[in-house]
Amino acid sequence: MTTQSLETRAINTLRFLSADAVQKANSGHPGLPMGGAAMAYTIWTRHLRHNPRNPKWIGRDRFILSGGHGSMLLYSLLHLTGYDLSLDEIKNFRQWESLTPGHPEYGLTPGVEVTTGPLGQGFANGVGMAIAASHLAATFNQSGHNIIDPFIYAIVTDGDLMEGVAAEAASMAGHMSLGRLIYLYDDNNISIDGSTDLAFTEDRAVRFRSYGWQVLRVEDGNDVEAIDKAIKEAKADPRPSLIMCKTIIGFGAPNRQGTQKAHGEPLGEDELSAAKTNLGWDKEAKFFIPEDVLAFYHQAIEKGRELEADWNMRFEAYKRIHPALGSELQRRLNGELPKGWDWEEVLPKFPADAKGMATRAASGKVINALASGLPELIGGSADLAPSNNTKIDGSPAFQKDSFAGRNFHFGVREHAMGSVLNGMAVFGGVIPYGGTFLVFADYMRPPIRLAALSHYPSIFIFTHDSVGLGEDGPTHQPIEHLMSLRLIPNLIVVRPADANETAGAWKVAIENKHAPTVLALTRQNVPTFETSNYAGVEKGAYILKDFGEPQMILMASGSEVSLIMEAAQKLADEGKGVRVVSFPSWELFEKQDEKYKDSVLPKSIQKRLAVEAGSGMGWERYAKSVISIERYGASAPYKTIFEHLGFTVENVVAKAKEL
Amino acid sequence: MTTQSLETRAINTLRFLSADAVQKANSGHPGLPMGGAAMAYTIWTRHLRHNPRNPKWIGRDRFILSGGHGSMLLYSLLHLTGYDLSLDEIKNFRQWESLTPGHPEYGLTPGVEVTTGPLGQGFANGVGMAIAASHLAATFNQSGHNIIDPFIYAIVTDGDLMEGVAAEAASMAGHMSLGRLIYLYDDNNISIDGSTDLAFTEDRAVRFRSYGWQVLRVEDGNDVEAIDKAIKEAKADPRPSLIMCKTIIGFGAPNRQGTQKAHGEPLGEDELSAAKTNLGWDKEAKFFIPEDVLAFYHQAIEKGRELEADWNMRFEAYKRIHPALGSELQRRLNGELPKGWDWEEVLPKFPADAKGMATRAASGKVINALASGLPELIGGSADLAPSNNTKIDGSPAFQKDSFAGRNFHFGVREHAMGSVLNGMAVFGGVIPYGGTFLVFADYMRPPIRLAALSHYPSIFIFTHDSVGLGEDGPTHQPIEHLMSLRLIPNLIVVRPADANETAGAWKVAIENKHAPTVLALTRQNVPTFETSNYAGVEKGAYILKDFGEPQMILMASGSEVSLIMEAAQKLADEGKGVRVVSFPSWELFEKQDEKYKDSVLPKSIQKRLAVEAGSGMGWERYAKSVISIERYGASAPYKTIFEHLGFTVENVVAKAKEL
Repeated sequence: MTTQSLETRAINTLRFLSADAVQKANSGHPGLPMGGAAMAYTIWTRHLRHNPRNPKWIGRDRFILSGGHGSMLLYSLLHLTGYDLSLDEIKNFRQWESLTPGHPEYGLTPGVEVTTGPLGQGFANGVGMAIAASHLAATFNQSGHNIIDPFIYAIVTDGDLMEGVAAEAASMAGHMSLGRLIYLYDDNNISIDGSTDLAFTEDRAVRFRSYGWQVLRVEDGNDVEAIDKAIKEAKADPRPSLIMCKTIIGFGAPNRQGTQKAHGEPLGEDELSAAKTNLGWDKEAKFFIPEDVLAFYHQAIEKGRELEADWNMRFEAYKRIHPALGSELQRRLNGELPKGWDWEEVLPKFPADAKGMATRAASGKVINALASGLPELIGGSADLAPSNNTKIDGSPAFQKDSFAGRNFHFGVREHAMGSVLNGMAVFGGVIPYGGTFLVFADYMRPPIRLAALSHYPSIFIFTHDSVGLGEDGPTHQPIEHLMSLRLIPNLIVVRPADANETAGAWKVAIENKHAPTVLALTRQNVPTFETSNYAGVEKGAYILKDFGEPQMILMASGSEVSLIMEAAQKLADEGKGVRVVSFPSWELFEKQDEKYKDSVLPKSIQKRLAVEAGSGMGWERYAKSVISIERYGASAPYKTIFEHLGFTVENVVAKAKEL
Repeated sequence: MTTQSLETRAINTLRFLSADAVQKANSGHPGLPMGGAAMAYTIWTRHLRHNPRNPKWIGRDRFILSGGHGSMLLYSLLHLTGYDLSLDEIKNFRQWESLTPGHPEYGLTPGVEVTTGPLGQGFANGVGMAIAASHLAATFNQSGHNIIDPFIYAIVTDGDLMEGVAAEAASMAGHMSLGRLIYLYDDNNISIDGSTDLAFTEDRAVRFRSYGWQVLRVEDGNDVEAIDKAIKEAKADPRPSLIMCKTIIGFGAPNRQGTQKAHGEPLGEDELSAAKTNLGWDKEAKFFIPEDVLAFYHQAIEKGRELEADWNMRFEAYKRIHPALGSELQRRLNGELPKGWDWEEVLPKFPADAKGMATRAASGKVINALASGLPELIGGSADLAPSNNTKIDGSPAFQKDSFAGRNFHFGVREHAMGSVLNGMAVFGGVIPYGGTFLVFADYMRPPIRLAALSHYPSIFIFTHDSVGLGEDGPTHQPIEHLMSLRLIPNLIVVRPADANETAGAWKVAIENKHAPTVLALTRQNVPTFETSNYAGVEKGAYILKDFGEPQMILMASGSEVSLIMEAAQKLADEGKGVRVVSFPSWELFEKQDEKYKDSVLPKSIQKRLAVEAGSGMGWERYAKSVISIERYGASAPYKTIFEHLGFTVENVVAKAKEL
């Protein structure tokens, strides 16, 4: 063993620290850490600019383990290079409340840049990070001052490359020529079912070239020099790069390496011992880290300190010459609103108007009202910009020759858009939004969930939010979508009733720094109310109007609020006391104290009707009765549809009287 | 105008019938019908084998309009070639209860083979159809008797090709070498945001070649002879074929053609008139069909009759020589169970067993019990076969050299798997299933919804159905998924409590011919109960056991049933009368009559507690109180997680006492 080079031992330390942790947990994936250790070693010791003692240093490169099942590889790297992740945490892999869960979780473990595990997501998140970095670089870097200049490294797997979301993101990255992306592909020919020959025989190199990527090959994935050379070539090329490294899954395990058995289960004590012997490791030692190996990896601490100090010096120089830009960049990276920012001033006020406007149109106006004062607000649409009203006027598109552009053409790629938004949000310095029709939230549900799980402040704009979409018909009409988004823990869903509530919804979205926000917006016009207001939106639900002394409560969200307002007027005309509650957000309402909740929905008034043009499941918690839609929609002018499905003043009045 | 050839006029008839309908509806998409008319004409008049008077003739080719927004092109073709779709329906485009909704809907309009609109779905459905066709051909065709021999034609668009689901499906199709696929790509360089240069500049030809497709080019998408030649080449090649036809969106409209304005809105009366003049059409005439053009298209009726008669003759000959195969094929295409099929005999019975087994393991056993008698049962997994227990023992994999194989390696491509299952299901003759983890149902939500909307009997197997998944952690643990699937109209969701209920769940799935079924199955072992039974599963909920005279009801689904059984025993030991209701399926329970429902959940017993390891929203309709999970899970051994989240006998007992 002593005859082995420090490098070999350093790589084997990654392998066996990982395999030992998996073995101790009796659960996990040894195959990727053992097969991909040399790739990780090369990135982390020769290229990655990072500071283990300040994982949030903004000048750092990013590293993504897209195959999150190989989490122990990442935890081993973090521990060895001096992040605040103790050996006890490694030994506590996959245990309750450890910092080392089965798949890496952003916000939990220092140094984990993004939550991965669901395949393809890390791949696409990196594209978003490269977008954010390129945008900030184009906006802030000045001649001789490359303040923002990171590379985004990732280890990606067969599973990632098979996922459609990665295909979409790769096409986007090639189109945008995101040269900051350096992805090492763990090309091990094995997936869970067995050889990739079973399902994955496309020519991956040709495919990635078709997207506009540089594709490089490393014939031996354990060859550090070859990997190093390829990474250097990747850095030098203006295109995103895929480095295909031929690896052997579970490398070293004599009976399991190169087979699917090495992928997702512990090797077993015998095989693990045999692997150690095979690679010249002490077969008795567990969680063994040779002293010189630790010292070697720990160089990252000093190097990181130097890198950050150097960067800080350069940033100081930059701020001296470009003080306004410097403080603006600092503000944006801190996620602070501009000094003197006054919502009251910034948000447009929409006068009461019976004709009103679609909330998607109001959203377009609000975006543009915010955009001039909030340069970090950037976004676009999955090829529905004219319908989603996502365009920032007066700014060019973000394209490979115009990275400072704030308008994004994501293409018909909803899934990648969602994952890319997450990458942008987690990179920081920008507030990203992306739009499509609400029905197509289904195409991007995985990144919505991951944003909620990981507390990324992505903003999802979903227009055409009900059968009010009209003629396009059932395939394009959301029914269950609003409710199925409300089911996602941490996610804030806001469905404003009119233009002023839309302004309030945007305030919520901008201020919601630790969770994603969904804005559900109408295609069709809705009246602008006298008494709608953004403060009410922030409470989740509020009294829009009391008609007399209320004996019953009508509640609704979005476009149905105008319906209950009319119905309430009718009931009031008949002498009934009616309260109209606008209910844009369940999640925000649930955050209020009992006193507020009771002031809006007093326990004494149990005659309560909810009206929402979608699945009604769950409204039981607020209302006694609900007018909802428990079927698919229909293709027809939207007023006809609403009429046939019972969304009429008459029906609301009738149902209210039944209470 | 009379100087134009019949062919030119026939193509222009498609264009203007479509554009007139869009104009009259004042809603819709004229661009694709006008730009793609010649492609459609060539397929439908020179290649497509179909019988307008029997749209379900099983010997037919299939045609898919993957860009479903161009629906009027398809409706025009159906009307002109003599399907039961009147001109009045064309004039009623996008109106309430017409047969001509905004996007084509399977089951509604005769001749519509599959529901399209959500982009990428039709593309992937076609792959499923080609799989089903290839499988049936390999199983039933005999030397000299090519009874099953269809081609699957599609018109696919830029939007389809940008979607990840199409990328996944294309890779799958190339891997499987599905030569039956002949896709014409409406390569018009325009999407809604504008030129495809904005977002979609990958080399599509190279990309499809990398998947293993034949790629052909037609430089002028109006050149019928060139299209015809390409289709012939496609037919002759053993690979799937993509024919890239350079077209001009909205061809003929002088001011809008070639721009995104032609895509998704009516041309307007003036532009429409100008287009008619431009192409030598009578600008005053609306819905104009020249007599000779109609006669020409109507040849499809006679030709279809002949084709079917010829096929019937050939099928008769086949049946004479291969009577057993003939009647078996007939049975399978009719969707009938084998003669003498006896569920009681076929379904395995699992003896009561405290240790029990995981329901995914039971599912694997049931699949194999069914598989020997039900050769039409075929399926696989998105690279999780060993975890999803989807394998049919003794059958090879479906691969390009073994189309008779019944086991599918879909790869890590959940989305395409879902859409491909739908295509297989709608083709008929097979009962397709596909598996992944429940959390990844999110990756395939669009095809699940489309199956439910369109009544495709696809079977979705989702294992690892709760935090009971354990160490893999929150990224892999479903929370909101079960409930968000229950929200989808028409979908039947079954979460069996033990091995015998799993058998019942499979009976439900096989018999559910007009809707998709989701089976939610555990990773972890669950006891097999004395009194569990498949008849109860079919009712959705049933009394698993009464402990004494019930004063309260405990209800649960899946793995939590064992928990309430234990809790009920404890409560009974303390002298309480408790009913335990196993509740595998809300949808099936809702189909029961009031009498049955009341017999299980008598109105007289309002002390009711529901227990489910997932989001509890909606259980309010059955229970007064619910033990659920309203947060993300955790990475730890599953028993630890359940304990920390309150899924213990003690907690159930305590909550029950609070009632």
